[in-house]
This record gives sequence, structure tokens and C-alpha cells, in this order.
Amino acid sequence: MTDLARLVGDIAREMADLPERGEVATYIPPLAAIDPGRFGLCVVTADGAIHLAGDALEPFSIQSISKVFALTQALGKVGEALWSRVGREPSGTPFNSIVQLEREQGIPRNPFINAGALVVADINLAGHAPRVAIGELLRFVRHLADDESIVIDEIVARAEQATGFRNIALANYMKAFGTIRHAPELTLGVYFHQCAIAMSCRQLAMAGRFLMHGGLHAPGGARIVPARRARRINALMLTCGHYDASGDFAFRVGLPGKSGVGGGILAIAPGKASIAVWSPGLNASGNSQLGTLALERLADATGWSVFAEA
Amino acid sequence: MTDLARLVGDIAREMADLPERGEVATYIPPLAAIDPGRFGLCVVTADGAIHLAGDALEPFSIQSISKVFALTQALGKVGEALWSRVGREPSGTPFNSIVQLEREQGIPRNPFINAGALVVADINLAGHAPRVAIGELLRFVRHLADDESIVIDEIVARAEQATGFRNIALANYMKAFGTIRHAPELTLGVYFHQCAIAMSCRQLAMAGRFLMHGGLHAPGGARIVPARRARRINALMLTCGHYDASGDFAFRVGLPGKSGVGGGILAIAPGKASIAVWSPGLNASGNSQLGTLALERLADATGWSVFAEA
Amino acid sequence: MTDLARLVGDIAREMADLPERGEVATYIPPLAAIDPGRFGLCVVTADGAIHLAGDALEPFSIQSISKVFALTQALGKVGEALWSRVGREPSGTPFNSIVQLEREQGIPRNPFINAGALVVADINLAGHAPRVAIGELLRFVRHLADDESIVIDEIVARAEQATGFRNIALANYMKAFGTIRHAPELTLGVYFHQCAIAMSCRQLAMAGRFLMHGGLHAPGGARIVPARRARRINALMLTCGHYDASGDFAFRVGLPGKSGVGGGILAIAPGKASIAVWSPGLNASGNSQLGTLALERLADATGWSVFAEA
Amino acid sequence: MTDLARLVGDIAREMADLPERGEVATYIPPLAAIDPGRFGLCVVTADGAIHLAGDALEPFSIQSISKVFALTQALGKVGEALWSRVGREPSGTPFNSIVQLEREQGIPRNPFINAGALVVADINLAGHAPRVAIGELLRFVRHLADDESIVIDEIVARAEQATGFRNIALANYMKAFGTIRHAPELTLGVYFHQCAIAMSCRQLAMAGRFLMHGGLHAPGGARIVPARRARRINALMLTCGHYDASGDFAFRVGLPGKSGVGGGILAIAPGKASIAVWSPGLNASGNSQLGTLALERLADATGWSVFAEA
Repeated sequence: MTDLARLVGDIAREMADLPERGEVATYIPPLAAIDPGRFGLCVVTADGAIHLAGDALEPFSIQSISKVFALTQALGKVGEALWSRVGREPSGTPFNSIVQLEREQGIPRNPFINAGALVVADINLAGHAPRVAIGELLRFVRHLADDESIVIDEIVARAEQATGFRNIALANYMKAFGTIRHAPELTLGVYFHQCAIAMSCRQLAMAGRFLMHGGLHAPGGARIVPARRARRINALMLTCGHYDASGDFAFRVGLPGKSGVGGGILAIAPGKASIAVWSPGLNASGNSQLGTLALERLADATGWSVFAEA
Repeated sequence: MTDLARLVGDIAREMADLPERGEVATYIPPLAAIDPGRFGLCVVTADGAIHLAGDALEPFSIQSISKVFALTQALGKVGEALWSRVGREPSGTPFNSIVQLEREQGIPRNPFINAGALVVADINLAGHAPRVAIGELLRFVRHLADDESIVIDEIVARAEQATGFRNIALANYMKAFGTIRHAPELTLGVYFHQCAIAMSCRQLAMAGRFLMHGGLHAPGGARIVPARRARRINALMLTCGHYDASGDFAFRVGLPGKSGVGGGILAIAPGKASIAVWSPGLNASGNSQLGTLALERLADATGWSVFAEA
Repeated sequence: MTDLARLVGDIAREMADLPERGEVATYIPPLAAIDPGRFGLCVVTADGAIHLAGDALEPFSIQSISKVFALTQALGKVGEALWSRVGREPSGTPFNSIVQLEREQGIPRNPFINAGALVVADINLAGHAPRVAIGELLRFVRHLADDESIVIDEIVARAEQATGFRNIALANYMKAFGTIRHAPELTLGVYFHQCAIAMSCRQLAMAGRFLMHGGLHAPGGARIVPARRARRINALMLTCGHYDASGDFAFRVGLPGKSGVGGGILAIAPGKASIAVWSPGLNASGNSQLGTLALERLADATGWSVFAEA
Repeated sequence: MTDLARLVGDIAREMADLPERGEVATYIPPLAAIDPGRFGLCVVTADGAIHLAGDALEPFSIQSISKVFALTQALGKVGEALWSRVGREPSGTPFNSIVQLEREQGIPRNPFINAGALVVADINLAGHAPRVAIGELLRFVRHLADDESIVIDEIVARAEQATGFRNIALANYMKAFGTIRHAPELTLGVYFHQCAIAMSCRQLAMAGRFLMHGGLHAPGGARIVPARRARRINALMLTCGHYDASGDFAFRVGLPGKSGVGGGILAIAPGKASIAVWSPGLNASGNSQLGTLALERLADATGWSVFAEA
């Protein structure tokens, strides 16, 4: 058993016992039913080794982590022109804030807050029916993860649609500014379905490998994105991936990461590892409480922080 | 001549010819008189090699870059307790904004916006006379840079004092909330003087080495800060070091960096290099226009981005 | 011919010749087609005399002026309990702002900004179909004006629905907070139709009489609202009736007034007159440019300002 | 004994017994020592009759009520040009907010929030020493009240100076924008002293007579300001005189009024009465709790609301 294998197991065991697990998100009813005691961790290293612990094979709703894949897809479609419709600065506001949009004429601060992700969904829609855009994204994620079994949880998708009034507000608000170009309900259809993709930690860590490998699917494998684009997506994850707690995540963990309200986090140690963690309870900023702690433990023990000297 | 030496020279030559150099800051009169044609670059690598180009030996006003050294000094005094008085999130607002303070009860978002740096100065003051705190900071910077010739430009310090109405407003505003504990004019005295420290690119890159070396003065040398603290200061520089253009700097350059309105930028490639660049013209966000471009060139050519796989 | 009759005619003639007429609202297409040269004025005095000038018999889209009648209707339904769902303070922001809502947990500042009027529409909906609530409001307005010919302009109503993305955003945003209780599209249906009521200056001034007469339909007539409620509606019109130009309207005209983007303004001189003016060109704050000027002339000449000694 | 005399006495007796008296302001130490049980009321009617009840002859710190007299003085100096340096819209924010200033380039929303009153003080300073401007204002207030005994409470003035960090912040912030033209400490000197004027309800109601009489000192007396200016000051008091509770005061009381944190309120019934009330306990918005209630009682009983028909 390698040191890393042991570490992954140790972290999962420590997390299993912790009483302070945060609060499971309740505003999407099917998510509210998830057992807060679940915890999964998967680390895929540069050499292809896969380390699993806890509920690492259990699919969960990836929610906002899908924004990483959707952004990659949209950059593939329109390239750097994307940045005329969405910024790349931390917002300093919660994930669902609408305040910044009014001040900045409907241009979201970055592609990882909900408003920005809606613009990305609008780009991916590209005049097609929502199911075409969703199908394309799903195929892309399956390809990245080398796993055809990944699906969308339709119960979650319908619940998002039925309760997503703030997202409906954001989409219509940006439509008024012209930042959203399709009928808002179509763009929202894409967005609600992408959030409802269900993946396990293993599938998620596998899908994140291209960000560890400078844009290659695997070492010596096919190129998913240019190396510069992989770096830039990592940069966006680090500065904007945890909403108004992004600075704190960079401070504590020191890795590019993207969280979702389903309790998952995808983190990348460039050149070293693609990591996925899942624990449904959220902290006050809406990020997985134990997921963040587990990544802090992992980064401390491995020295994988991008801010460390080695 | 090594490849890096050639690269440093090439970048300096490219910058010398560029017509779009940004605007020199005018609100501090002595800074307004600086020739926008100046350009300096110094790269100190992990092995101690020093590469200089252009005006790399010419002292300039380091301004907000001093916030890195002052934060390090304050963390040495009060440790992590510092974070009860200042946050560590990107602000999403310009360097001198007061809006966020009203909403968040006088707690600045991070130590690199002016409000946060004033709190840090207040911590460093620690009940002493301003000149004691300033003298201590100056000795610390000289020690880091191994250079006793570093001084404060008194003309700049007086000009800051005479025109710094926004900073006076920020300090008094935080005094009303109790975030500033000394008489505001004393805290402001420390702050105005630390901004007026004059350093060359060479001195600045030398002073930044401890952030490249995981907290050590030099490889095998004395410990300046614990390794974890060095990582955390790097993380703060990356997420907050360029105000509301921090995300863009991370996206384009991919290195922890701190800019000053004097046109300097200190950037750290952990384990690889400490870099200082100077070009007085600023872009719309108040960061050195050519300095940013030069660092982008350097990071692209060397692959030093913290978000790259190697 | 009385002095007042002459004054009304004089003002209409002065307005006919003025070249600076503001800009006709373009975001609702049917409104964009209105001739900016139109001008109407009607003054109904306490003794029942009616003075007309210009296009005072021409129906126009009353838009936000409908908020006065809808508020009166809602207060009749739920009384002072209404104020638990909407505030009564000037907002300091434009009519369609969403910023204040985020900060104040979905409670609109007052019933005359769009967000507040949507809550009022939600109250008037009261579990019925939208056409029931709209029919009720239309009957109420016809009764106030003693005029059965008042109708809703269906072309305008459909155009509002097709282009009202900001209002859709506001309604969904408040639904997320629970301030809107019906399905947002139902509440919006009521709102878009009430805005599309078409009335002439004569009809509008007649409908406003109850606010001049302390709540009575006419002197000695039926009571529409208690005297205290009439005073309070007047107070709200004065402090909030012109969005972020309410202070300026109070300063210049000194009368309770409510404007609409169709170019109409209803103004009340308590105990003296109910006044309606119409000129389609709007000033920068979205209020009728010549309508405001005409009311300023009228108030200056008559001394009807509520702030005057007599 | 007239009905009004009886009413004034009845209101004072009702207020004497009420247990919910609000909280005395504590941030200016000498004000914190005031007995919350005090209550005074003075009504001066158009015919010159003076009705007194409770502690109506007891001087108290008029604080922000001084802004009415200072504005009148400044309008006398520079006329309508004043409005290029300060707005006349309700701010929607608390009295000491700085947020709006950042968004609107240092121009305060109205002359009755602290920022606006500082600009008015800067205008009144007019290049002279602070004591000249203060002396002039004091003489003006004595003249209005026909009472040479009115003085400045120097203990309060010094306490304001020692604790007024938010006001110091506001003045310096506006100095950075050029809205304040003198050295901030001079402008602040004027402001702190004007707030420390001590007056009784009787003196205050007498001083407010010119706003009841359309700008005349008394019926048939000397003209203090043109009639239009008196109306406009009344309008500003109604829309902006109670900070972010101005709408509520207009709704409940219906009279132009200006409150101070000393617990005083000056209210004007144009053509009918000048009223001063004093009760030191403040409500959540910083306005006198019982003072507001007493004025509501008085306006209800007399029908003096400017929004009433008679």
C-alpha cells in the first residue's frame, strides 16, 4: 500500500467520525433527502493510479461542478470571444447574487457564478434545441471520464426547474440586457439539466484529468484543450471556483477547485493529481464543509498546493 | 548566456519599443513626474542567479507592494489572530473602495486593498510611535533584500499625507467601527511611509525570495516565516494582489503577484523564481501595463505558471 | 372664461412650442410609435369644474399610474397588513432596480417601484384567475372616473409580456423570497394588463378625484376610502411617485404625483384639484419632461403646492 | 383655554406615561446622559399664539435640526448654485452612509444626510475661519427665534469632534472628490459646532416660523427667504428630513419635519403652525420615538397634514 493510498483512507476515516458536517442544501428538494453522513474521496494521480475511499463510487448531483465542463465546451465553440460576454474576476458576492449584474450592465463577473454559467449555457445552446446542447455536454463528460454510464438525474432536473426562481430571475434579467440571446426558458433548460448530471467521485476525478495533464486526456493521449486553456481554466477555478469563499479555499487548500451544492468538489493539482471529494453538508458559504477540510488535509500532507515551492 | 538571461533581455527590449505604455499615476504629485519610458526587470532564480534588464537598478516607489512585507511583519506579531480584523477574500472592488466596509461592519475584505493594509499598519503600530513601526518595517525589508541602502522617499511620503484624503477617510471610517485602534493619524503615518519605500527591481526581487523558498531567506538559509505561511501569502497575492483585476492577472500570468501604483509588480514562481518588474504607466485597473505584459511573456516562455502541469 | 381656464390653455400653448420634449420610451414597441408632439392637460377642481387643453381627450397608456389605483384596491382587500409585504420609503433607485431587493430580503421599498407594484398585483390576484383581478381593477377605475369606456389596450399588454424581461426577473426573484405568492406568470399577467389600461387626461383626472376629496368620490358623494387612507396615498405619491426623481418633483412642483412611462402624470392638490397631464417624451429619470414642466407652471401660478402657506 | 391648548397638554400627558421611549443616542457621550423621561412640545400658530407643554423651555442639543437653518443660510449665500454640489433626492440610506457617495462621485444625495450637511457647512465657511461661519449661523438662528439667549454647548461640540470619525471620514472622502473645498478639519469644525447648538422647543418652534409663513419672519414681518424657497425647504424636509424613515414620517404625520439625534423634531404645517417636540429616546431609524408619535397625534387631531383636503 502506497503512502498516498494510506493517506486517502486515513482522511476518509477521519471525516467519517466528525460531528460537524454542515447543512445539506434544502432548496432543491431531492438534494435535501441525501444522508449527511456520506463521504467519498477519489484521487487520480499523474501516472494514472486511482485511489478511492468511502462512498467514492456513489453518484451524486454535481451541480455547479458542471460549470467547469460547460465552460470548456463553450470555449471550444467560441474561443476567447466568450470573454466579451462574461468576465473573469472574483465577484465578492454569493453564487446567486443579482446585484453585480445591475451595476455592470448584465455582464456576469465570471463563468462560475450562476449568472455567468447561464451565459455559458446560452453559448452552448447555439440555436439548437436544449436537449441537443445537453446531449453534447453529457457525451463530452462521458468522454472525459471514459465512462458511458454517466447520466442526468431527471428528478433533480425537474426539481431545479420547479424551484429555480432565482435562476429564472437571473436569466430574464440578462435577457433584458441582451447577454442571454435565446428565450430564457431554453437557456434555463440547458442549465438546469447540466446541474443535474450525477457522477461519482471516481467519475469526476477521471473527468478532471485533462486539467492535471495540461489539456491532454491522459499522458500521451488526445488533446482535449490547448495547454494554455487548461492553465486558464485552473486559474479561474482558483480565483472564482468557490464563490465568495474562493479566497479562503485558496488560502487553506491552495488548489484550483470547483464546488457544487450537492456537496462535491473537484480539485486539480496540476501535473500531480485530479481529486474529487463528496460530503453533502455545506458550510455557510455553500461549499462542502468536510470536502474542504479533506482537501486541506490532503494538500497539507502531500505538499500539492500550487503555492508551495516544490 | 543562459536561455533565461536571453529571455529577460529580449522582454526588456520588446517593452522598450511599445508605444502603449498606460498612464502614470498623477494623484501623488512626485509619482506624476516619472518618465513613462522607464522599464526594469529582475529575475532571481531558486539557485540564486540574478538576471537584470533595463532600469532594474533604479529605485522607484514601491507603494502597495509594501503591503506584502507589512502583512508578513504583522503575521509575525499577532499570527493568525490577524484574520479576525481583516478578511482574505477578493473584494471585487477597486483598491480604494469604501462601499464594502459599510456593508461588512468595518472589516476589510483582504489585507491588500487599502482598507485592509491600514488595519495591518495599525497592527504593526502596536502602541508605539509611528517612526518605530516604520523603522522596524524598513529594517525587515533591508534584511530580506540583503541591502542596507533601501530608504523611504520622504518627498513621496509627505505628498501621500497631503493628498491622501481617501485613505484618511478609510482610516477614520474603520476607527468608527473599532477596526482601527490607534488614533487614525498615527496609523496613517505608518501607512503613508511604508508606501513611500523606494526600491529597485533588484532589491524587490531579492526581498521576495522567501516566498519562492517556502519561507526561507535562501536555500539552507534562515527561516523568515513557516512554510505554510509562505504558501498562504502567495495565495493571497494570487487572489487579491491586483485589486479588481486579480482574476485577470491569474488568468494571463498565473503567478502570485502584488502591484503598486508606482508601476512595480513583485511576482513569485514558488520554487523557481522571485521576479520584479517596473514600468510606470498603469492600465485602467491601476496596475502596470507593461509590467503585466512582461510577466505574461515571461510566464509563457518559462512555463512558470502555478497552473501549469510541470 | 375663468383665470384657471385661461391658465390651462396658456400652459398647453407654451408646451406645444417647446423643442426639448424628451425621449419617447422605446422598450415597449407600441409606445415607441407615439407622436412626441402630443400634449394634453386636464384640471378638475374641487367644485367639479373641468378644464381641458390640448389632447386631453386622447387615451394613452397609463402604465405606472395604474399603481395608484391598484394600491387603493389592494388596501381595500387587506388593509394595513399590506405593509408587511412592501415598504413605504423612497428607494433612491430607478423604477426597475433589483439591487435593493437582494439587500432587503425580497421586500420592495414601496408600492410604486415595479417590484412593489408586482407585490400589490399579487395581493389583488388573491387566488383568482388573472382576468378576474384585472376585470375588478378595470371596473374600479371606470367607477372612479364615472366612465364605462375605459379599456385595456391589448396590443400594449401583449408587448409588455413579450419584452418585460426585467419585470419577469423581479417577480421570479421575489417568488424565491416568498414575497410573491402566486405563480409568477399569473402575477405578471395582472401587472402587464394593469399597465396597459388606456385613459385620457380627462378620465385620469376624474379618477383621481377621491384623493382630492379626502377619500370621497365627490363632495357629498360616496366614500371610496377613509380620509386617513387618502392622505396616506397622497403621501406615498409625493415621496415615491417619481422613482429616483421624487425629491426633485416635490421640490419643483410640490404636489403628490404619479408618473408613467407612457408620458402621463396624475397630480393631486388636496382639497383643490385633481390634475392629469400627458406628453410622451421622458426625461432622464423616465418621467414626462413637459408634463413635469406643465405641472410646475400650474403649481407656481395657482399656489397649489402642499408646501405653500395658503 | 382653546382646543389646541388642551390638545397640546393632552398629548404631553399621554407621552409622559408611555413606557416605550426608545433609546437615547450614546455615541456622543454628553447626549447619553440625558434623562429619557423628558418630553417637551411647543406649537406656534399662524396668529402667533404659543402653546407649551412639558419640558418645552428646556434647551437640548438640536443636532441635525441645525441642517435646516444652515441650508437656509447657504442658499442665501450661493442661491440655486448650491444644487450643483448636493442633490435633493431621498437617499434610501441611513444618515451617516458613505456608500452612495462612492457610486455618485462624491455628490451627496441631499442636504439633510450628514454628507450633504457637510457640503452645506463648506459653503457657509466661504473662506473664513470656522468661528466666523458659526457665529453667523448662531446670529441667524437667534434672529429667527427672536431670542439672544441661544448658545452653542461647547461640551457637546468637543465630544462630537472627539468621536465623529464617520463624519471625519465623510468630509475627507468628499475632499478627495473636490465636493468639499476647504481643509476638511475646518469644514468639520463648522459642522460639529452647528450640531451642538442648544435650543428649547419654544426657541425651535419660533425659529421655524418663517417656513410656516411662506418665508416671512411673521405675518407682515420681514422677509427671511422668498416664498418659493420656503416651499422648497419644506419639500426637502418632507422627502429627506428623517433619513431612511422619511417616507414613514410622511405617511404617518404628513408634515415637513427635520429630526435630530438629540431627540428633537421641528415640523411645519404651512400656513398653520410651527411645531417643535423633544423626547430623547430614538427609534431604530434614529428619530425621536415619542416625538414622532406626538406629531402623529397632533396631525390627526388638527387635520394639519399637507395631504389632507382642508
